[in-house]
Amino acid sequence: MIEAGRDVEFIKVGDLVSVPFNIACGRCRNCKERATGVCLSVNPARPGAAYGYVDMGGWVGGQAEYVMVPYADFNLLKFPDKAQAMEKIRDLTCLSDILPTGYHGAVSAGVGTGSIVYVAGAGPVGLACAAASHLLGAACVIVGDLIPERLAQARSFGCETVDVSKSATIAEQIDAIVGAPEVDCAVDCVGFEARGHGKDAVKEAPATVLNSLMEITRAAGALGIPGLYVTGDPGGIDDNAKVGRLSIRIGLGWAKSHVFTTGQCPVMKYNRQLMQAILFGKINIAKAVNVEVITLDDAPRGYRDFDKGAAKKFVLDPHGFVRKAA
Amino acid sequence: MIEAGRDVEFIKVGDLVSVPFNIACGRCRNCKERATGVCLSVNPARPGAAYGYVDMGGWVGGQAEYVMVPYADFNLLKFPDKAQAMEKIRDLTCLSDILPTGYHGAVSAGVGTGSIVYVAGAGPVGLACAAASHLLGAACVIVGDLIPERLAQARSFGCETVDVSKSATIAEQIDAIVGAPEVDCAVDCVGFEARGHGKDAVKEAPATVLNSLMEITRAAGALGIPGLYVTGDPGGIDDNAKVGRLSIRIGLGWAKSHVFTTGQCPVMKYNRQLMQAILFGKINIAKAVNVEVITLDDAPRGYRDFDKGAAKKFVLDPHGFVRKAA
Amino acid sequence: MIEAGRDVEFIKVGDLVSVPFNIACGRCRNCKERATGVCLSVNPARPGAAYGYVDMGGWVGGQAEYVMVPYADFNLLKFPDKAQAMEKIRDLTCLSDILPTGYHGAVSAGVGTGSIVYVAGAGPVGLACAAASHLLGAACVIVGDLIPERLAQARSFGCETVDVSKSATIAEQIDAIVGAPEVDCAVDCVGFEARGHGKDAVKEAPATVLNSLMEITRAAGALGIPGLYVTGDPGGIDDNAKVGRLSIRIGLGWAKSHVFTTGQCPVMKYNRQLMQAILFGKINIAKAVNVEVITLDDAPRGYRDFDKGAAKKFVLDPHGFVRKAA
Amino acid sequence: MIEAGRDVEFIKVGDLVSVPFNIACGRCRNCKERATGVCLSVNPARPGAAYGYVDMGGWVGGQAEYVMVPYADFNLLKFPDKAQAMEKIRDLTCLSDILPTGYHGAVSAGVGTGSIVYVAGAGPVGLACAAASHLLGAACVIVGDLIPERLAQARSFGCETVDVSKSATIAEQIDAIVGAPEVDCAVDCVGFEARGHGKDAVKEAPATVLNSLMEITRAAGALGIPGLYVTGDPGGIDDNAKVGRLSIRIGLGWAKSHVFTTGQCPVMKYNRQLMQAILFGKINIAKAVNVEVITLDDAPRGYRDFDKGAAKKFVLDPHGFVRKAA
Repeated sequence: MIEAGRDVEFIKVGDLVSVPFNIACGRCRNCKERATGVCLSVNPARPGAAYGYVDMGGWVGGQAEYVMVPYADFNLLKFPDKAQAMEKIRDLTCLSDILPTGYHGAVSAGVGTGSIVYVAGAGPVGLACAAASHLLGAACVIVGDLIPERLAQARSFGCETVDVSKSATIAEQIDAIVGAPEVDCAVDCVGFEARGHGKDAVKEAPATVLNSLMEITRAAGALGIPGLYVTGDPGGIDDNAKVGRLSIRIGLGWAKSHVFTTGQCPVMKYNRQLMQAILFGKINIAKAVNVEVITLDDAPRGYRDFDKGAAKKFVLDPHGFVRKAA
Repeated sequence: MIEAGRDVEFIKVGDLVSVPFNIACGRCRNCKERATGVCLSVNPARPGAAYGYVDMGGWVGGQAEYVMVPYADFNLLKFPDKAQAMEKIRDLTCLSDILPTGYHGAVSAGVGTGSIVYVAGAGPVGLACAAASHLLGAACVIVGDLIPERLAQARSFGCETVDVSKSATIAEQIDAIVGAPEVDCAVDCVGFEARGHGKDAVKEAPATVLNSLMEITRAAGALGIPGLYVTGDPGGIDDNAKVGRLSIRIGLGWAKSHVFTTGQCPVMKYNRQLMQAILFGKINIAKAVNVEVITLDDAPRGYRDFDKGAAKKFVLDPHGFVRKAA
Repeated sequence: MIEAGRDVEFIKVGDLVSVPFNIACGRCRNCKERATGVCLSVNPARPGAAYGYVDMGGWVGGQAEYVMVPYADFNLLKFPDKAQAMEKIRDLTCLSDILPTGYHGAVSAGVGTGSIVYVAGAGPVGLACAAASHLLGAACVIVGDLIPERLAQARSFGCETVDVSKSATIAEQIDAIVGAPEVDCAVDCVGFEARGHGKDAVKEAPATVLNSLMEITRAAGALGIPGLYVTGDPGGIDDNAKVGRLSIRIGLGWAKSHVFTTGQCPVMKYNRQLMQAILFGKINIAKAVNVEVITLDDAPRGYRDFDKGAAKKFVLDPHGFVRKAA
Repeated sequence: MIEAGRDVEFIKVGDLVSVPFNIACGRCRNCKERATGVCLSVNPARPGAAYGYVDMGGWVGGQAEYVMVPYADFNLLKFPDKAQAMEKIRDLTCLSDILPTGYHGAVSAGVGTGSIVYVAGAGPVGLACAAASHLLGAACVIVGDLIPERLAQARSFGCETVDVSKSATIAEQIDAIVGAPEVDCAVDCVGFEARGHGKDAVKEAPATVLNSLMEITRAAGALGIPGLYVTGDPGGIDDNAKVGRLSIRIGLGWAKSHVFTTGQCPVMKYNRQLMQAILFGKINIAKAVNVEVITLDDAPRGYRDFDKGAAKKFVLDPHGFVRKAA
């Protein structure tokens, strides 16, 4: 007798679920090919949709008391046991976006057993990427940022750190850590809002991260790029930046046969496995990204702190649901 | 400036190295395609060679004071720093065979982030496979055997266990652990020397493991089969077994779209990454397989204990090199 | 400006579509992971469903004037242009089952550029697999069967052939064709209804194909197994065969590090690409499998001819739709 | 009995072989991982070496009567049968560089069964990439260039063409061919020496190809980039170009989740399979790239014609070996 197992049941009212930040129809070519981050049908403007973002399909944002989830039977991930899930609820909130996004960055950079990884940025995505890299078996995870509080947070769960404001290139600091000026895999968790390195760390320099990652990534290595690059940036530093055109040392990457993977994380490709890793206690993501659960009324304060570079991931909890559990 | 990195240097006299158990030429089609376990040129009888085994090329065994390593520049893995390596030397001895073999079983069964894994057998290969599964991010690793000491060893590093002598099928015990009678991935670390399950646990039953793994592996799951199956077994239980023909429930595996990966581990595909994982402290393989380092003179005692089912991996140390380090 | 492209629209009444033979919900874990051949929800008995088969979910068969397609928005493949599709309609009928099934066998055997492939069986699945192997860039496709008419059909589109009734092993015939007694990839398009080879070709011998494929497949090669193996066969040749247990030379496959991929083809993983290959004239599948379009009334005759070993693929055309187009 | 097959023998004096353009040691980490294009040991300046190029290890060039091949037992590909090889010798000369390079571009762009592909550039690499795309099963291969003779050459073996001098963007021309303004896969076979499109086709515009490929490649598609980008170009159009920094619309690629694979082709990853495809008549690469075999003395003329945009691949034949065969 062959049993169908426990994944059979569909979503029912009352289930406890995770909602991926990307909205996907489950029927178009891209969804069928697991590229739910660029679903072809839920956004008339372009492939890919999300809750509450400009240019992402006009879906009302998730930062509210209730949210309408289209194609819910496809999009939602059900937690198998409600009581068990409540014990890990702070971690499980990270399945909507931050953990899969960091994990996708690591996976697309080729992180696996024994990798030496450099993660650019110790904001929530960078910290999640660092934690995911550990889960993937990386030997050494090095996180770079210029905010001391964030670097301390990275060190709190076993990462090495690089302070990018200390030197014009980061190769020396990496050399001091692993005995060679290069890494196997690099992940850009910063994107176009980067500042320069060394004495330029006060200035916007949108191509800094990509260019420095090519410098320190070994030949035949790969770069994961979950950090956001936009098609237009009205406040860009020059005419090129305003249309999303950056000055990139592509010749350097080419000489090293680098592979670059860009774009938003297709959450559904990873969230079930990551849920299992959380439920069985293999990753403490809430601790790694330093989750702080706040009320909806407190959201403006959360945004202010985040903009100041707080080493925290704020989780909005309109109904006190998460806070009650903790 | 592009640096070539630290992997450039070739092997020199005095280097501390790991010798893979498979011998490979590095020049034939299979070696070039990373299938060093079935090198086409080092064994006139058939693809694949090893030190000191019947039918594996006639190379004198590695269980000696010295060993001649053909194509040493290709086969040897150099430890980057001798002093650092000596601190982990008990773990690093496992890179020759037992860790890559267990890891290969896990990888070919599809073990990754969040997997629920069943490992058949808690001998050294099974224990290494279980430790490798944890390294690969498995959510839950369940190990089955019938020797209590070995099961206790598996539990010592975070595995769940199944006593196959307790019931005719193992699905119930798995259900009791994970809440469903099936696993995502299964690894056969036993091979043709299997005994039956339940009350048949006293009898040889060479197809038992394969058949029971098909029962408990989910549809769309995969089976890694590092456990040895032979082309001929003079002491086989019947005429079929004598020529390596076993009675396999292939219809069951087919109905579940199972994928089966057989054969000896191509050590070089994995040993560099696993070395890094050891050197950076991500896996304590010597503890997991319970390494006991013994002299060459003590080898017969080691074999006797192993045959009795000791939960130990014996490492021969002819020159006292490893024992001095510990 | 980013255009969403042409794949956006959903299914509408009046569309011309292909219906995969497997029924899938699009919402369960397996469907999300593209394993639609073992969908977890459409069959209460076990994973996987199909139209009109015993034990496959109780869905009324497709060999009728009309068929109810559950989850049609997920399951159906729309042809982009109706008029263009009508010109290739005989080929496009093969997208429901036979072409993807043969293609899946080839892909899972590792067929690609320059492969030397052996396809066991020149029935419709075998012929489709041979045609798919050519499409995948195989250097040489060898098809084995014992019916002369089917072998002639295989030769008609550039395959080499082996008559399995001519010799006890097929290695010599392969040697005569490619100058070596082995192939890179082998596909079992026969399954448990196999007969023996050589003088045993008159007798049922359900493990013949698998065992002979291990003999002729190179070390490090792979076997695709789309041919059906069942969990129970009331008319089986012995007690083992009756419960789907076959006597398999697993030791031989293990010695060669073979990988075995079993199970029904997940049609949706391949049908869009294969549709494009048909529409752009890259494969003439109707000619390769020798499609004969018949009325529903003529179906009994079609089944009789098929049972006799006709080198034909019968397509039922209840409304004369296909015949009008040709 | 398991036969080792025909690939066993090592290279002997008198063998007819193909020499990959990249020089590789076969012992370093990258060679073992099949990244022979960035071998770590044969070039003191940086990873990767080749015959007769500046900055590629100082190995004397292959455009001579004789060449010294280091690590010949690893680097050389032996043709199995000398007489058979002589019949296809014009095609087999393309295995050293042009065919694997074009094939690598196609493979890394994700070209496979049913793909719609755009190949930028109809020089020898572009034409080889187009031929390789057909071999890989692409449904439709569109080649863009601005030299009419080269476009005619592309059409001669079943490609569609786009004249990039005719319009500022190429999306309209693609739309006219396939009914949508986008392709599944795109390959940059031009590199930094690109000119602009439309009326800018007379000017150097080194980022033109990359930027236009992002425009026309579908969301979730990939770009293969075998076309050369350099770390420094003394004659570059501006200060950025002089150090290999180009103005790239990375935001556009990111929005579409593009994957970019750069670098020189690791020839040994592909040349055996491509040799088989040639020997069995699956690809006529000499015809596709329009091979003209010339003497060493005639080389300067060949270079002049190539610089003028001749739709030809010149093969130097110092000893008249190839010309005698034809």
